[in-house]
Amino acid sequence: MTQTPVRIGLIGAGRIGQVHAANIAADADTSLAWIADPFVAGAEEISSRYGGRVTDDPEELLSSGEIDAVLIASPTATHVHLIARSVDLGLPVLCEKPIDLEISRVDALREKVAARNVPVALGFNRRFDPAFAGVRARVAAGQIGALEQLTIISRDPAPPPPSYIAASGGIFRDMTIHDLDMARFFVPEIVEVHATATTTFDEGARGHDDFDTAVTTLRAESGAIVTILNSRHSAVGYDQRVEAFGARGYLSVANAPTSLVSLSTSEAVEAKPPYENFFLERYAFAYAEELREFVKLVRGQPSLSPTFEDGRAALLLADAAQRSAVERIVVPVRLT
Amino acid sequence: MTQTPVRIGLIGAGRIGQVHAANIAADADTSLAWIADPFVAGAEEISSRYGGRVTDDPEELLSSGEIDAVLIASPTATHVHLIARSVDLGLPVLCEKPIDLEISRVDALREKVAARNVPVALGFNRRFDPAFAGVRARVAAGQIGALEQLTIISRDPAPPPPSYIAASGGIFRDMTIHDLDMARFFVPEIVEVHATATTTFDEGARGHDDFDTAVTTLRAESGAIVTILNSRHSAVGYDQRVEAFGARGYLSVANAPTSLVSLSTSEAVEAKPPYENFFLERYAFAYAEELREFVKLVRGQPSLSPTFEDGRAALLLADAAQRSAVERIVVPVRLT
Amino acid sequence: MTQTPVRIGLIGAGRIGQVHAANIAADADTSLAWIADPFVAGAEEISSRYGGRVTDDPEELLSSGEIDAVLIASPTATHVHLIARSVDLGLPVLCEKPIDLEISRVDALREKVAARNVPVALGFNRRFDPAFAGVRARVAAGQIGALEQLTIISRDPAPPPPSYIAASGGIFRDMTIHDLDMARFFVPEIVEVHATATTTFDEGARGHDDFDTAVTTLRAESGAIVTILNSRHSAVGYDQRVEAFGARGYLSVANAPTSLVSLSTSEAVEAKPPYENFFLERYAFAYAEELREFVKLVRGQPSLSPTFEDGRAALLLADAAQRSAVERIVVPVRLT
Amino acid sequence: MTQTPVRIGLIGAGRIGQVHAANIAADADTSLAWIADPFVAGAEEISSRYGGRVTDDPEELLSSGEIDAVLIASPTATHVHLIARSVDLGLPVLCEKPIDLEISRVDALREKVAARNVPVALGFNRRFDPAFAGVRARVAAGQIGALEQLTIISRDPAPPPPSYIAASGGIFRDMTIHDLDMARFFVPEIVEVHATATTTFDEGARGHDDFDTAVTTLRAESGAIVTILNSRHSAVGYDQRVEAFGARGYLSVANAPTSLVSLSTSEAVEAKPPYENFFLERYAFAYAEELREFVKLVRGQPSLSPTFEDGRAALLLADAAQRSAVERIVVPVRLT
Repeated sequence: MTQTPVRIGLIGAGRIGQVHAANIAADADTSLAWIADPFVAGAEEISSRYGGRVTDDPEELLSSGEIDAVLIASPTATHVHLIARSVDLGLPVLCEKPIDLEISRVDALREKVAARNVPVALGFNRRFDPAFAGVRARVAAGQIGALEQLTIISRDPAPPPPSYIAASGGIFRDMTIHDLDMARFFVPEIVEVHATATTTFDEGARGHDDFDTAVTTLRAESGAIVTILNSRHSAVGYDQRVEAFGARGYLSVANAPTSLVSLSTSEAVEAKPPYENFFLERYAFAYAEELREFVKLVRGQPSLSPTFEDGRAALLLADAAQRSAVERIVVPVRLT
Repeated sequence: MTQTPVRIGLIGAGRIGQVHAANIAADADTSLAWIADPFVAGAEEISSRYGGRVTDDPEELLSSGEIDAVLIASPTATHVHLIARSVDLGLPVLCEKPIDLEISRVDALREKVAARNVPVALGFNRRFDPAFAGVRARVAAGQIGALEQLTIISRDPAPPPPSYIAASGGIFRDMTIHDLDMARFFVPEIVEVHATATTTFDEGARGHDDFDTAVTTLRAESGAIVTILNSRHSAVGYDQRVEAFGARGYLSVANAPTSLVSLSTSEAVEAKPPYENFFLERYAFAYAEELREFVKLVRGQPSLSPTFEDGRAALLLADAAQRSAVERIVVPVRLT
Repeated sequence: MTQTPVRIGLIGAGRIGQVHAANIAADADTSLAWIADPFVAGAEEISSRYGGRVTDDPEELLSSGEIDAVLIASPTATHVHLIARSVDLGLPVLCEKPIDLEISRVDALREKVAARNVPVALGFNRRFDPAFAGVRARVAAGQIGALEQLTIISRDPAPPPPSYIAASGGIFRDMTIHDLDMARFFVPEIVEVHATATTTFDEGARGHDDFDTAVTTLRAESGAIVTILNSRHSAVGYDQRVEAFGARGYLSVANAPTSLVSLSTSEAVEAKPPYENFFLERYAFAYAEELREFVKLVRGQPSLSPTFEDGRAALLLADAAQRSAVERIVVPVRLT
Repeated sequence: MTQTPVRIGLIGAGRIGQVHAANIAADADTSLAWIADPFVAGAEEISSRYGGRVTDDPEELLSSGEIDAVLIASPTATHVHLIARSVDLGLPVLCEKPIDLEISRVDALREKVAARNVPVALGFNRRFDPAFAGVRARVAAGQIGALEQLTIISRDPAPPPPSYIAASGGIFRDMTIHDLDMARFFVPEIVEVHATATTTFDEGARGHDDFDTAVTTLRAESGAIVTILNSRHSAVGYDQRVEAFGARGYLSVANAPTSLVSLSTSEAVEAKPPYENFFLERYAFAYAEELREFVKLVRGQPSLSPTFEDGRAALLLADAAQRSAVERIVVPVRLT
């Protein structure tokens, strides 16, 4: 690329911020211009590896005049304010999910985003995984006929600590939200939500009236049914599978093998080692691809980045699932 | 076995009656004594291959004094009457599912069955499949820890004719009922039912206000969640998979391969031929095993045969699923 | 079939004789007329299950006038004499492999067989396995282009007792001979043989100057190369795989799964139970099919039965492999 | 790492030189100091991406005083001279295989290498593949008991051009040599070689008295047998599989999937896309790891780099295989 790299201001130097920093540094189309984190040591460590100026105040970053776009990887509670400020300054945003845990705050921000016409992308990284994106493209190409059932298995390796759960908004807004966006990646128009959820193993979830196990079913306007199977633990490692079923057959996404080696003995045959532990390993490529699409968005080119509206729709669905699970009702939804 | 074979009276000479006749003849512990079918030519053909006297009147069979047990493979509408008559005559019964399409008629029969203490077994053949039975035994042995999620994929190769649908009681009472029993094979105590169902491809189903696609979720008393994915068509052949998920991992039942051969070319690698077309092929062993367990029941030995109560519970669940799908509500159930 | 069943005289009531007896009894086209075995109790047990007259003298069976064909499942040393007598009497023969351990005795018999024009089939059961036969048919249909490499993995579960080895003629004439025939099933015209063989685990083999491990390569006139990998033990069960490789890809025959169930835990994923233990389980269907093709041969219909010439060719190749392994040379062969 | 990076002089700016240059630049422990290639434009392009001074004369690079080690990726004919010069200058060498096509020239160089005590590593990249290295480690740990059979499938996607074949030394010295080293990675002490080779599809090979298909068997001192299956073409992509078989079972290395997606339809089920096309994709990680081990060697740390002696042994085995295939004899070898 002969274009000037997009100068990115990264807000948040935690685990996911570090992933983004590494990708920004590795991509010839982006440069890491500023890093902001109240815990300034974290920002400084990133800076020492990938360059960029450091601050403990996001406002300094935003108003520096030295960035072309903002990547928000700070805690959820800060997202709405930071998106609003970025948009006010005309800076395109890539924000980690969710936009917020309160749909009222999201809706208030929505008008501003629409009015200013500044691109806001949401960090639904799985859309950029080659397997999921490939299945979607093949479904769109008619390889299995009309999509009738989409089944998503999504299980984290182990429950987060209780302190995380307390601030998470619950399993649907925190974890299922990724799968709800994946559902909409295939069938955007969802009209009805049902969720069954229980707490059988995680005392941390129980202590915060949250669930550790959930099955969510979505009815699409087309008649397609999406089923999402979630668990907060998984002995085999990060369990991320999808099956798209249609009239002509089905496309399956298997878990990523961690080795090409299998062992066959008198005990068991064709046994393989467990899967990748978690999302940083499983979606390493997807995070880099997510950044590449964001660059296109910043440059005004056609881009696959999920939008603010996608982020809002996922939260609406998560709210509906939460309500369904608690009140034991079926919840109609209207996403537009 | 040195015991006298159990003399069986077979009522119904259709497709499934023929399967039972062949198994009765092949098993040294059973003999085919009588066959009854209003379409007497069908009964005669069975008789010519496997022996047995023929009648067009089930009553003649039941009162012949020449049978030790009854196998009912006639249309659903006849089941309640034939079970009642058999029980009155002290004849143990193996009856194809469902007992009836009306729970009120099943409940009326229930008292008689309980009062007479004559064994009544239900033809939930899948319980005898080595794969499903094996997974259940391994779950019971604690191999995956407590069962948290059970996922059942069950798709028929092609929709039945509209005439069949008209008399079927709908997809839940006709097709899902097998999966509902499979659910109870693993987790008998179900307390809540939800179903999402649509009609997207089968005009026959639409014409009878039935569905061709359904996802049913069951909540168990234990907190386990069962998910059943149904379709009335499946391009790959009969699609019958189960995954039992627990704290320590999961056990998966794959579709039965029809060949050991795979083809690898520049187009695709490791491609195998499609699966068995339907239940007669897939569950051939299970039907024979079902008969063997029924013989034990007749002889007063410990038996794995599902009971009248299992048949009633499956119908209750099917009714709940139907109501959930039509009224778009979550339905609490009480099975005992 | 409305034809009279072929009355078969079975010589040999051992393990493989019992398999044939069961198949003869189960096939409507055959009946078990006579059973001969010096160990008359074995013959009587077969007779009690499947019918047939019993003798301890094969000659009584052969000259009874009550049989239409002979199935020879007696020890190898008796084969040449029994084939010769059967042919003299005009009785078609199905003889277990090998014809004999001495090629000179086979060649002496060869002329008689050719002169009398009585069908003699060899019991190379694997030709009738649906997977191997299917691959051969698909190769013949051009699915992988011209066959360039055929790789056969063939490993028995455990070494036979030393007494068996003493009379076996060695691993090539006893065990590899099946694979040599499989090679010729795909590429009949073999022109060169090399074998590398060692003895690393079986003291029984070492005690009789035999091998427990062997790799045999065959060069075909067409330029195709066949590789046979043998071992006298296999922890996973009977290991029987084939890969046919050509310009357009390859066809693979996997080991037969014994269950549809796999287990995934934190130790290992997708682990399946071991394979069938040995040939009686793995090739049950093939033995029945072998009999059906032999019936066609008896009736003068087109038949896939391997012939006396196939039996001789396999022994020639086994002799060449043995010589190659012992003398460490490459051995040219001429099979016709 | 706080150590000064190892300054590497890269000789050869072709396809494989470019791979090494990228890895040298990406590894914090190495820097690309000089690049030499008679085709200076290629060297300059590498320099523009990864830095380093450029020359068309390797001698200038070697005597620059600005490098700590040499990576030789130039044509085979230059290897002996360049290794000798490097060793004379006390510069550790990583040289692409083979050392030379003439064992006499290798032996002449051998004395000098031994005398000077300068590390010379050979570019047998596959030793660094995690799957092969993992299997070797698990075999060494006794997971399958003593190794009895090692089977290597190694097929290139398409034949090289005739001009390449003309200078290649033939299939054994050019292609099989990698597999011969893989054999020695598991069982170093080989005592006997046999090869069967044919030419059935590649006119280029035929025109240079070379082969396009070969099966090589190696007997190890331990009694283990190694089988190598080679082809110059492969419709499915680069075909690289290994099976290590022992008393307690076997370890298998499958081909690397290019996608997690499989398609199941009425035509075929579980069909996956073809494999990676060739070595640059399949062994990308291995090349980087090879460099890391070379750095350890340069620094005098314990290293897994294959040595000059490994390079010589592989050539001796390739020579023996070539002779075996042409003269149709079994060839004893002595590697030390």
